[in-house]
Amino acid sequence: MAELVAKGKVAKEAAARLIEVMPVMDDALVKMAAALEANAGFILAENARDMENAKRAGMAAQMQDRLLLTADRIGQVAEGIRQVAALESPLGRVLHRAERPNGLKIEKISVPLGVIGIIYESRPNVTADAAALCLKAGNAVILRGGKEAILSNIAIVKVLAEAAQAAGLPAGCIQLIEDITRESAVGLMKLNEYLDVIIPRGGAGLIKSVMENATVPAIETGTGNCHIYVDASANIEMAQEIAINAKTSRPSVCNAAEKLLVHQAVAREFLPGALAALAEKGVEIRGCEKVREIYPAALPMASDEWYLEYLDMVIGVKVVNCLACAIAHVNKYSSKHSEAIITSDTAAAEKFLAHIDSSSVYVNASTRFTDGFEFGLGAEIGISTQKVHARGPMGLMELTSTKYQIRGEGQIR
Amino acid sequence: MAELVAKGKVAKEAAARLIEVMPVMDDALVKMAAALEANAGFILAENARDMENAKRAGMAAQMQDRLLLTADRIGQVAEGIRQVAALESPLGRVLHRAERPNGLKIEKISVPLGVIGIIYESRPNVTADAAALCLKAGNAVILRGGKEAILSNIAIVKVLAEAAQAAGLPAGCIQLIEDITRESAVGLMKLNEYLDVIIPRGGAGLIKSVMENATVPAIETGTGNCHIYVDASANIEMAQEIAINAKTSRPSVCNAAEKLLVHQAVAREFLPGALAALAEKGVEIRGCEKVREIYPAALPMASDEWYLEYLDMVIGVKVVNCLACAIAHVNKYSSKHSEAIITSDTAAAEKFLAHIDSSSVYVNASTRFTDGFEFGLGAEIGISTQKVHARGPMGLMELTSTKYQIRGEGQIR
Repeated sequence: MAELVAKGKVAKEAAARLIEVMPVMDDALVKMAAALEANAGFILAENARDMENAKRAGMAAQMQDRLLLTADRIGQVAEGIRQVAALESPLGRVLHRAERPNGLKIEKISVPLGVIGIIYESRPNVTADAAALCLKAGNAVILRGGKEAILSNIAIVKVLAEAAQAAGLPAGCIQLIEDITRESAVGLMKLNEYLDVIIPRGGAGLIKSVMENATVPAIETGTGNCHIYVDASANIEMAQEIAINAKTSRPSVCNAAEKLLVHQAVAREFLPGALAALAEKGVEIRGCEKVREIYPAALPMASDEWYLEYLDMVIGVKVVNCLACAIAHVNKYSSKHSEAIITSDTAAAEKFLAHIDSSSVYVNASTRFTDGFEFGLGAEIGISTQKVHARGPMGLMELTSTKYQIRGEGQIR
Repeated sequence: MAELVAKGKVAKEAAARLIEVMPVMDDALVKMAAALEANAGFILAENARDMENAKRAGMAAQMQDRLLLTADRIGQVAEGIRQVAALESPLGRVLHRAERPNGLKIEKISVPLGVIGIIYESRPNVTADAAALCLKAGNAVILRGGKEAILSNIAIVKVLAEAAQAAGLPAGCIQLIEDITRESAVGLMKLNEYLDVIIPRGGAGLIKSVMENATVPAIETGTGNCHIYVDASANIEMAQEIAINAKTSRPSVCNAAEKLLVHQAVAREFLPGALAALAEKGVEIRGCEKVREIYPAALPMASDEWYLEYLDMVIGVKVVNCLACAIAHVNKYSSKHSEAIITSDTAAAEKFLAHIDSSSVYVNASTRFTDGFEFGLGAEIGISTQKVHARGPMGLMELTSTKYQIRGEGQIR
């Protein structure tokens, strides 16, 4: 806890000083990117030690791949920082302007949030990505990564922080919590005196822990139990193509489809071909009873599986009686991330858009597009599945707050 | 807890149905206002029972006044609801629109938050005010008022809910938690399955409890340790007028000034007259040592008093050495609500505006203007002192979320 309080204090001071140095921020970010590349040898050596420990601990191959850095991957991270530097600043925008009858001039402008805490898991590239986005929006950042990546993270933060300070940014604008106990994670979630917001990036367990423990305002991100609904009027070929893309193009990410709902009127036309095509791609098909009647190779589904985010080559399939039934099912079971209807009926499309209670609702497109870059935000710190502050892909504007500035000539009330 | 879960479920269903009935919402609100007036006798009788209990329990006179309803006050509440009905809807606004290179048409639109929980204290008028604002923004509302006002609240909610349903709104769109134990309050703060956000309205103790206990996203509101800073270049007469207005026009509200900072260069010119004028209005003057030198009638101040919101005819006064010292003091001690600089130096004004980290920052005007109506928002559910989701006076837009709607023609990624 001593580390948290000490770093919290420094971060708060740094946040206050960042306001003055914003003119050099883009230049500082470019220099930080260059520093990562110039110090790739040091970072890779520290990462190799993390990898050795991971192997010794018997970490799964997929997890090892997330932990691994290479010269190429460091180059990609540096390029990502340069892209963030090139984005338009989200600060100082006048979001509302009014002159009141009493002559008061009121402006609502975008300002930094202040100090942002990021809690994440094993991928060390998040360290640099998240730090760059927070800084670009004028915020100090306190990072708390996974224990598997601790040596990589210490190295990356050392390189970034030194380059930031050399470029004129205040000391302490990027800090890493090096105590990787559970206590330090929970302590960060409760560091209200110093943190303005905390953002978890990782799996369902981490996000649940943050939502349950945080007293600092937190933004729930990432869990995606996404649905594709094939309506009675769907173009069957398009529906199959979208289902295959949404499920198989990258099954481990949050915007991948996990469930497929099909209107009863097209179930016999759509399911045999689509499910065979999915199975051919290596997807395990699980289904309701009606699905198993039409496609006997489907495995049965447990009722609580409708809530599940598989993040794997598995899909749950259900035949529904009507559009309203599909909407009710989605609103009950989905994690409110991304859902799509495939339809050629405009009224059905508009009803789905209006009634589905999720961050991103699609007509005739794959859920895989829910992403800050795909939406044209230029960058992404995560995808919010809650309703306050930010919803859906979060770009730089979602890392800002607002402030009212009021100019008068002696007005009293 | 059974009541919470049962009402949570009903509220969630009501929220889903509200989307369809928004065309009749304004009409329903007008009818609800009329119903309050038509049933004033019933409401006043129930309020009289609350008042009797309050007197028997020895409630302070000021608190009794907050609890008291009269025919006039019910008329004011009804008029407030009619004003809310007349406001422009905050829903369905296109906040961002983009057509991507792949042809996807992306719109970010304003949508209801869903189910809003309001926890408040003894004033029964909040019951109707808050319900009307939540409904106008398309949300179902669960109210949990103070135990002193329980009979008044039950009566008001009964009248409003019946009128709402008769006007075509879904049952359960307005509900009151009638179990007024501490457990029901804390339970509501943790009702994540059904609530999208919780907003406390009340004193510092209530707000602290919500911020510590809530796992539902909460919006911190209301505490106002507001500062007036009299700069070296201030118009002394204007400064005195603003200080008197900000302190004495309504000392029990959150936008009243609690502290007065004075640049050393004008301390001897400003303080004797201004503090005597405040004292004449009945304000108790407390001050730092320099203030007590210049104005010996000032009482001494404890160091932790700089954090205090008096909500009373008391003011803490301090002489500061410089503008930067004033900014540092405010950013350390204030509750980040509202602060004002009195100055004729544009550079000083801009520095204060840029560096003060509070929801509403004023140049040459009273902090008393921090208010949804005064800012032209048309209404107010509270004043946020946190940085996520909403900051400063919260109007109808702050009771909404957003949703991305994406229209394609078969796009895959």
